[in-house]
Amino acid sequence: MMSNLIEAINSNKDDKSLRAIVLSAKGNVFSAGHNLKELQANTGVDQHKLIFSKASELMKSIIQSPVPVIAKVNGFATAAGCQLVATCDMIVCSDTSKFSTPGANFGIFCSTPGIAVGRCVPKSRATYMLFTGEPITAQEAYESGLVTKVVPASQLDDEVNKIIEKIKHKSRSVIALGKEFFYKQIDLSLMDAYKLGEDIMVQNINSNDGQEGIKSFVEKRKAVWTHE
Amino acid sequence: MMSNLIEAINSNKDDKSLRAIVLSAKGNVFSAGHNLKELQANTGVDQHKLIFSKASELMKSIIQSPVPVIAKVNGFATAAGCQLVATCDMIVCSDTSKFSTPGANFGIFCSTPGIAVGRCVPKSRATYMLFTGEPITAQEAYESGLVTKVVPASQLDDEVNKIIEKIKHKSRSVIALGKEFFYKQIDLSLMDAYKLGEDIMVQNINSNDGQEGIKSFVEKRKAVWTHE
Amino acid sequence: MMSNLIEAINSNKDDKSLRAIVLSAKGNVFSAGHNLKELQANTGVDQHKLIFSKASELMKSIIQSPVPVIAKVNGFATAAGCQLVATCDMIVCSDTSKFSTPGANFGIFCSTPGIAVGRCVPKSRATYMLFTGEPITAQEAYESGLVTKVVPASQLDDEVNKIIEKIKHKSRSVIALGKEFFYKQIDLSLMDAYKLGEDIMVQNINSNDGQEGIKSFVEKRKAVWTHE
Repeated sequence: MMSNLIEAINSNKDDKSLRAIVLSAKGNVFSAGHNLKELQANTGVDQHKLIFSKASELMKSIIQSPVPVIAKVNGFATAAGCQLVATCDMIVCSDTSKFSTPGANFGIFCSTPGIAVGRCVPKSRATYMLFTGEPITAQEAYESGLVTKVVPASQLDDEVNKIIEKIKHKSRSVIALGKEFFYKQIDLSLMDAYKLGEDIMVQNINSNDGQEGIKSFVEKRKAVWTHE
Repeated sequence: MMSNLIEAINSNKDDKSLRAIVLSAKGNVFSAGHNLKELQANTGVDQHKLIFSKASELMKSIIQSPVPVIAKVNGFATAAGCQLVATCDMIVCSDTSKFSTPGANFGIFCSTPGIAVGRCVPKSRATYMLFTGEPITAQEAYESGLVTKVVPASQLDDEVNKIIEKIKHKSRSVIALGKEFFYKQIDLSLMDAYKLGEDIMVQNINSNDGQEGIKSFVEKRKAVWTHE
Repeated sequence: MMSNLIEAINSNKDDKSLRAIVLSAKGNVFSAGHNLKELQANTGVDQHKLIFSKASELMKSIIQSPVPVIAKVNGFATAAGCQLVATCDMIVCSDTSKFSTPGANFGIFCSTPGIAVGRCVPKSRATYMLFTGEPITAQEAYESGLVTKVVPASQLDDEVNKIIEKIKHKSRSVIALGKEFFYKQIDLSLMDAYKLGEDIMVQNINSNDGQEGIKSFVEKRKAVWTHE
């Protein structure tokens, strides 16, 4: 499953017609995370290492994807499933969705989910999710900053499509440059981020689509992107 | 007072029957922080150094405690008292509680409280608290992410007990491992956090309670923790 | 414009009667950011570099100003204008204000605005603003932590004046020390922050206004600050 997701995310990386990726699920569970049976002792430590290395690879593939990755959640996202959601660039969920990191209930603390969740929500909420294992509602997830938008299930597709529509009208290469820089700078000190940011802005401006964007603005016409 | 708190937090560190610590107060002040009289010039610089070293030691003892530390707040938490609250893993407060960092009113900017508060709430709120000295309400504290839950005073004990009940049903050693890793990873870059996180997951899985948790899940029975 | 702002912020740096700076605008646009015409190819790369270096210098001048800088927003703050707002210490806005980072619409991803915005709001909201270019409302800006307070336009001046009044009653040098430390510590690990914080507290206490603050408290009288 993780390998398939990684492949699906990476396979069309260079296809210019790919503009956004939406992760969604059938049924009322978005993702329940790892299969606990795969983590039994008889599976062996090497296999356990492989599983968690694969999970990190999946998270990195989302962050490193040149196009925005949107989680469309209608149901439960738990443990590594909640990590998957928190790792997506944007998260739109139905108002009945729930989010939890209940690993400690089964003796396996949600340490790696906590990496993603702890960077998306305030500490007082991340610790509650991790230490109690209790789910939070869609509304609480919004109040905590975990999700971008909460809508009735019937409007979920519309809301996600609105976001995609906005992305589609922009230059692919400009979005890719911006996404890569966003995740790079957020781990830097403020001053280091600005130092690097100045270079990125100048590089962006002097790219094909940077100049086309400015030109079209000055000439009051629609931009024609090369996506390069 | 700080020494007593540190001792109380540390004294039963290895007692397996200790599963959570609740910090609460009698009366309508949770904590008003340092005793300004202790900070007068005639106390001497060495004593001032000792006081702030002790305060940091108290904050570290909370973070390094192997069990979750919960602040149960019903009233005012100000200055280092607000720092104490912000440092706890989870914070449950009554809807009439207030939080402030008013040190600058008395010529002593709440610089160390700002370390804890600035990591719990958005910058636009931390600066307001620190520069104006004005209190924020329980509701504003919730909206800013400072507190986990806000309830009427009459439900404060119930709400804290619900959290403790959830913790009690889990393995002590698994919670301890998870808590230690949470505070370690949050200071790392995302990729360094995942690198370390993979090892922690494998270590957790191959611990006694990690395997018991998985086994009990597969065998559809209640887990029997050794807490080791 | 940027040079004028930098000069205005820096010119009275050492004037003790300067206690706070308010950035506001005439009309219904707070700031729309860079002038795209200045970024055309024929302006030349050296000029582009200068523009973004100047923008970073403006942000640094706000952060390094010894007095709190407050954005009073009544209208639109977009792109580098949104960065300017997010960089201010406190932000008070009218309930009809809007905030956006729509650079990608014009081929120029708001990479540097994202540095400021990404440190003020949760990831799920920053990515929405940056990737879709869509504005968020004043209420959403409050829910995301971007702004300190939202009030009806008619109360905007009153709200900002209340904040300034609170700052005016404090010691200028104590606020300056506290502000400098706040932005320094927020980029450090928690333990490094506490190590440095202890020294700052002792330094603050043993300053003129630190001792005057404590003395006036003990003697139950109003403090008389030297602001030194």
